[in-house]
Amino acid sequence: MAASLLAFLLLLVGGMFSTSTPPPGPLEKVFQYIELHQDEFVQTLKEWVAVESNWVQPVPRLRRELHQMAGLAADQLQGLGARLASVDTGFHQLPDGQTLPIPPILLAELGSDPKKPTVCFSGHTDVQPARQEDRWLTDPYTLTEVDGKLYGRGTTDNKGPVLACINAVSAFKALDEGLPVNVKFLIKGMEEARSLALEELVWKEKSGFFSSVDCIVILDNLWISQRKPALIYGTRGNSYFTVEVKCRDQDFHSGTFGGILNESMADLVALLGSLVDKSGCILVPGLYEHVAPVTEEKRMYEAIDLDVGEFRSSSRVKGLLFDTKEELLMHLWRYPSLSIHGIEGAFHEPGAKTVIPGRVIGKFSIRLVPHVDMSVVETQVKQHLEYIFSKRNSSNQMTVSTALGLHPWIANISDHQYLA
Amino acid sequence: MAASLLAFLLLLVGGMFSTSTPPPGPLEKVFQYIELHQDEFVQTLKEWVAVESNWVQPVPRLRRELHQMAGLAADQLQGLGARLASVDTGFHQLPDGQTLPIPPILLAELGSDPKKPTVCFSGHTDVQPARQEDRWLTDPYTLTEVDGKLYGRGTTDNKGPVLACINAVSAFKALDEGLPVNVKFLIKGMEEARSLALEELVWKEKSGFFSSVDCIVILDNLWISQRKPALIYGTRGNSYFTVEVKCRDQDFHSGTFGGILNESMADLVALLGSLVDKSGCILVPGLYEHVAPVTEEKRMYEAIDLDVGEFRSSSRVKGLLFDTKEELLMHLWRYPSLSIHGIEGAFHEPGAKTVIPGRVIGKFSIRLVPHVDMSVVETQVKQHLEYIFSKRNSSNQMTVSTALGLHPWIANISDHQYLA
Repeated sequence: MAASLLAFLLLLVGGMFSTSTPPPGPLEKVFQYIELHQDEFVQTLKEWVAVESNWVQPVPRLRRELHQMAGLAADQLQGLGARLASVDTGFHQLPDGQTLPIPPILLAELGSDPKKPTVCFSGHTDVQPARQEDRWLTDPYTLTEVDGKLYGRGTTDNKGPVLACINAVSAFKALDEGLPVNVKFLIKGMEEARSLALEELVWKEKSGFFSSVDCIVILDNLWISQRKPALIYGTRGNSYFTVEVKCRDQDFHSGTFGGILNESMADLVALLGSLVDKSGCILVPGLYEHVAPVTEEKRMYEAIDLDVGEFRSSSRVKGLLFDTKEELLMHLWRYPSLSIHGIEGAFHEPGAKTVIPGRVIGKFSIRLVPHVDMSVVETQVKQHLEYIFSKRNSSNQMTVSTALGLHPWIANISDHQYLA
Repeated sequence: MAASLLAFLLLLVGGMFSTSTPPPGPLEKVFQYIELHQDEFVQTLKEWVAVESNWVQPVPRLRRELHQMAGLAADQLQGLGARLASVDTGFHQLPDGQTLPIPPILLAELGSDPKKPTVCFSGHTDVQPARQEDRWLTDPYTLTEVDGKLYGRGTTDNKGPVLACINAVSAFKALDEGLPVNVKFLIKGMEEARSLALEELVWKEKSGFFSSVDCIVILDNLWISQRKPALIYGTRGNSYFTVEVKCRDQDFHSGTFGGILNESMADLVALLGSLVDKSGCILVPGLYEHVAPVTEEKRMYEAIDLDVGEFRSSSRVKGLLFDTKEELLMHLWRYPSLSIHGIEGAFHEPGAKTVIPGRVIGKFSIRLVPHVDMSVVETQVKQHLEYIFSKRNSSNQMTVSTALGLHPWIANISDHQYLA
């Protein structure tokens, strides 16, 4: 997987901002260099994977490994001859009051030719925890090759891609081939913690490090399948809703109150059940009205190399809502979808409790696509839930709120960056 | 409240096992005695209420107060001249490994005339915690009189009734009036912890303390309203169900999977939504078939003194499913009811998380009444959910299980115990 990514990123770097095909000579040499040094690249990835750099369980030992990862990445960047700043981002206070230092964010620069565009590669070296119950087939912290694929925590998210990009640049440097762009790196160590301290740094470096950046390539994206990398040119947005139903603040006992109440859970289940049908179709009236009509883009889905059976089995689900590649991709990428996430305030623990919850909060969100307007969706959802609730003649109180709003974005794929 | 209970229990003790009205003389004297000693009785209750004898937060200081309560109750029982055994019931291990002694269970006996029946009064001296967020209007551990009512944690559950019963017996003793029954007391200190250690003791004392007991009066029951005590002659049973819907063991991210899955939450919400309608009517086919037909019992509900408005406001709900006293009582007592308790495996915390839960477990239970057979209900519920699920054509896996089963019981109110 690491080798494929390398090739992918080389194409990206090699071809960027060049409207004509690069001369075959240099790129062929670069590929040869990669073949020759593959074991060395994989060895470095192995060393990176071995560092258990997850922050989720805030055990100080593990936080030290986040700092260790920053050190390893800094070594690689300095090996390229980059000017490197290791930016101290302060401390992070845990809910228990404990204070831990945040690993530094690395800012590296290679080349500052004002005639060349500047590309910034952004990635991270922290990982999600690898738990026993996640059923790993190999040791997550020992990079292991099985059937030509490399397995290990962080191999794809995101140590592998970060190293692949560094290795690509190193190949150009080693061969003394001039890069067609100035390169910058932004390497984070707390991405899985919602990129703690990043926003502050971006504002601080707005007229510094980031002022000369023409485009940012995010190294942390999905592949379209197990064999194909992807160039992402848009993501869906999200409108996150909460719907609270309150009978009273206190819970009831079903033995002494069951049978005479408008139970808040019955109301909430009816409300949540009115949102989406068994085919995944959103039942909120008007919601599909502004979805951008399907254009000749349809041919693009047809051309994409994706095996539905393989996708299903690698997702470990028995069935999907759609059978064809085109329908699957369109429902993942260009149609809105609604997911019910859970309920706050009800009984959620293992075991049995005969509680009638007094006040419950349902949570669901709608993935937004062009040209669905977030504020229109919010109004439609509120009106729909108010209508459903009014039909129940419940004496309870219902409150619909929006918890989070992210607009969808789509880039112009005719833009020179995407053409490159 | 304590005074009313006293009168109630006196009637109970005075009249028990006697088919003719007791001579007016002795009972009038007993009532006079109560009037004269009311302040003293209330003072003792005040002392009991002041002891914060809750076990729920296992703070060792509070456990000491459970033992203190056992001591206070033992003093009162000894004051009656009862033979008292304070039974050591061993230790209780907390989830954190800490071991705490369980407060003793008190077994007291007063009279052993083989010609008289033996009545055992059972109550407890531990309480539920009184938390700030429960919005007490007076200090829970300071017995406070407001408008002729006594407020304080444990005043009704269950310190008040235990003391009222002891006081009733003490009045007979002080007046040298012979009790018509042999009296036993069973006083527990861990009732709110599912009567820890009680079952073991009952088996151990089966042919000892309990062998001569003709009937047990449970002091820990509900009043029908704020003004009326109740003689309980039946309770509904309970069939507790779990319905699991599994897409896969792991959760999904709604950004990368939303729109193409049979989401387990959508299936579960549809299943839970099929159980009960907005009027509280259970939608499981056949469920009402075996419910005992309403007989002349209806006249009993009519005769019961319950103010619906007062009941509603004391329950702190804006509305109830029924407007008349008769409908309310029948739906609380003699019709089945279904409550949805919650969902395990979904997002239940405050805040927003864009998770698509992979595997969720819905929990609901049905209050059972005569002559609904528990195994028939289980079959009906399973068949119903299987039908609803089959209509969804979901590729997920559904499993319905029963977690708990309690049969309903109803006593013969023509029995001499109830007539007394």
